[in-house]
Amino acid sequence: MLYLNKNDIYDLITYDEIMDAIEEAFKIHGSKNYDMPNRIHVSYRNNTLLYMPCFLQDIFGTKLLTLFPENRKKNRPVIDGLMLLNDYETGEPIGMMDGKILTALRTGAVGGVGIRHFTPETAKTVGLVGAGVQGFYQLLFACKARKIDKIMVFDIFTEKLAAFVKELEVLLPNVSIVIANTIEDLLKESQIVITTTTSYKPVLPEKPELLKGKSFIGIGSYKPNMREYPDILFSLLDKVYIDTEFAKEESGDLKIPLSNNLLQEDKIETVGSFLTNKKEIINKTIFYKSVGMALFDVVVAKLIYDEAKKNNVGQKIIL
Amino acid sequence: MLYLNKNDIYDLITYDEIMDAIEEAFKIHGSKNYDMPNRIHVSYRNNTLLYMPCFLQDIFGTKLLTLFPENRKKNRPVIDGLMLLNDYETGEPIGMMDGKILTALRTGAVGGVGIRHFTPETAKTVGLVGAGVQGFYQLLFACKARKIDKIMVFDIFTEKLAAFVKELEVLLPNVSIVIANTIEDLLKESQIVITTTTSYKPVLPEKPELLKGKSFIGIGSYKPNMREYPDILFSLLDKVYIDTEFAKEESGDLKIPLSNNLLQEDKIETVGSFLTNKKEIINKTIFYKSVGMALFDVVVAKLIYDEAKKNNVGQKIIL
Repeated sequence: MLYLNKNDIYDLITYDEIMDAIEEAFKIHGSKNYDMPNRIHVSYRNNTLLYMPCFLQDIFGTKLLTLFPENRKKNRPVIDGLMLLNDYETGEPIGMMDGKILTALRTGAVGGVGIRHFTPETAKTVGLVGAGVQGFYQLLFACKARKIDKIMVFDIFTEKLAAFVKELEVLLPNVSIVIANTIEDLLKESQIVITTTTSYKPVLPEKPELLKGKSFIGIGSYKPNMREYPDILFSLLDKVYIDTEFAKEESGDLKIPLSNNLLQEDKIETVGSFLTNKKEIINKTIFYKSVGMALFDVVVAKLIYDEAKKNNVGQKIIL
Repeated sequence: MLYLNKNDIYDLITYDEIMDAIEEAFKIHGSKNYDMPNRIHVSYRNNTLLYMPCFLQDIFGTKLLTLFPENRKKNRPVIDGLMLLNDYETGEPIGMMDGKILTALRTGAVGGVGIRHFTPETAKTVGLVGAGVQGFYQLLFACKARKIDKIMVFDIFTEKLAAFVKELEVLLPNVSIVIANTIEDLLKESQIVITTTTSYKPVLPEKPELLKGKSFIGIGSYKPNMREYPDILFSLLDKVYIDTEFAKEESGDLKIPLSNNLLQEDKIETVGSFLTNKKEIINKTIFYKSVGMALFDVVVAKLIYDEAKKNNVGQKIIL
């Protein structure tokens, strides 16, 4: 069995290739040539284990994650884990890789694909609300998808913001990165707005003049009672794009406005459907909401694994 | 993270130590100082994925198995997989080992613990019905638990029996190993009877004179419609010992006789309860039924992992 760590993965694949793989995953999602059981949650104390299996036509795999919120205080990643790949015919374990870097990269790439398709080609400014690991990767992918020259960052936890910006500046030397004092300041100067918080109430204000005409990338809310977006946004939206139909059940940013009739079903389209029938999107108010799915993980992991085999990269585990 | 393969595991632990660890697991089971979510089954075509998590007081883990019945035809193991161990405080993956050898060893040891406690100390003869991997390990542990001098083996698939016996003879040079032509022949000459088939109807005959006074170790039936034992046995039994209460739901060898009133609840006791309050068992007719549980896996895996750390054994995976 081959093991691939963070360095191996970075040697094998570019950000653009990961976004291409995510688009491929969206097409597989549209074609229905896959089998994805419901992801499995196991709760223990304040912690969660996630088992995310998915079968493609020639390989299958499971992402195994641990979510330990207390790790934040210990300066350890909250999300940890492994991605396992298995032989389609025999079930034998054939590959394994760092699940936390795979999660960060594929989630960043899912946001990046949204930016590729649902923001103006000329967009130059991004605002990020929620300066954690997921937000960090969202920005790296955003800067691959568009020629960004300014980033504004906001987080209610201010103590780690300086380090966050500093780390980002190393990787994005040509981008001006600014800490926003208020969300209003951030909204005023950002054409694209990305949210990656774990909030249970909207983090953006009920101010239509600051929301209209922008592209919103919602990553944070992954439970029916978690919300990042305010009621007023839904009256301004021209279109809502979602990664899976399941997002309407799983995310409070869709479920709550749908049940309150602030959002109508006919405004919502899956990315898979959009990609097979593209329309031009200019100066519209768009909300792109992702909750993620195991299909993304196994498609990206297979690409990385295939490249590793081809290039003889990785650590061989003697099973 | 440390990876331990079959050879590492054999270097680190003896059969007797594994049986001791299983007794320890039964005691933890009795004390309730653990948390074991229901095992998770995912079905795909004819195949099954199993996720078996369990939390102890200082470590947790998940056994990940694939059950691919068609592998038999390909001369590959039907059961494959990995055992993952995680740090209790942070969730970080710390150890991993061969899941098929762990399963075979712990299941063999669970049978062995049954033989330690529920068969006469003077028992010298064992009959095995079902000559697969599980049966193989059951016999190795049986010969550790009692001074066995004769083994009889029966399987309806006769073509692999000679190889099975030959392989066993290498490991048990002082035991006479005979292929039984019929189950009746096997029963006549066996004080202990172990069944490890995947049968949906009883494999032993409705003949009380061949069943009375013996110790039966039931390993095979792990679904509510799978059975190895005949109706008549339940009228002969003095006592039934089970590994978990859940076995009464999961195994047709308990569920069906219970629902037909052939077996009464007051005859049934868990091994955990028995071990805290031992009684002598002489010449009784006993049925010991195991369906297995993740607690066995994590307790045995922790012991192996701790020994590996102490002795610097295993392959270090650079996460």
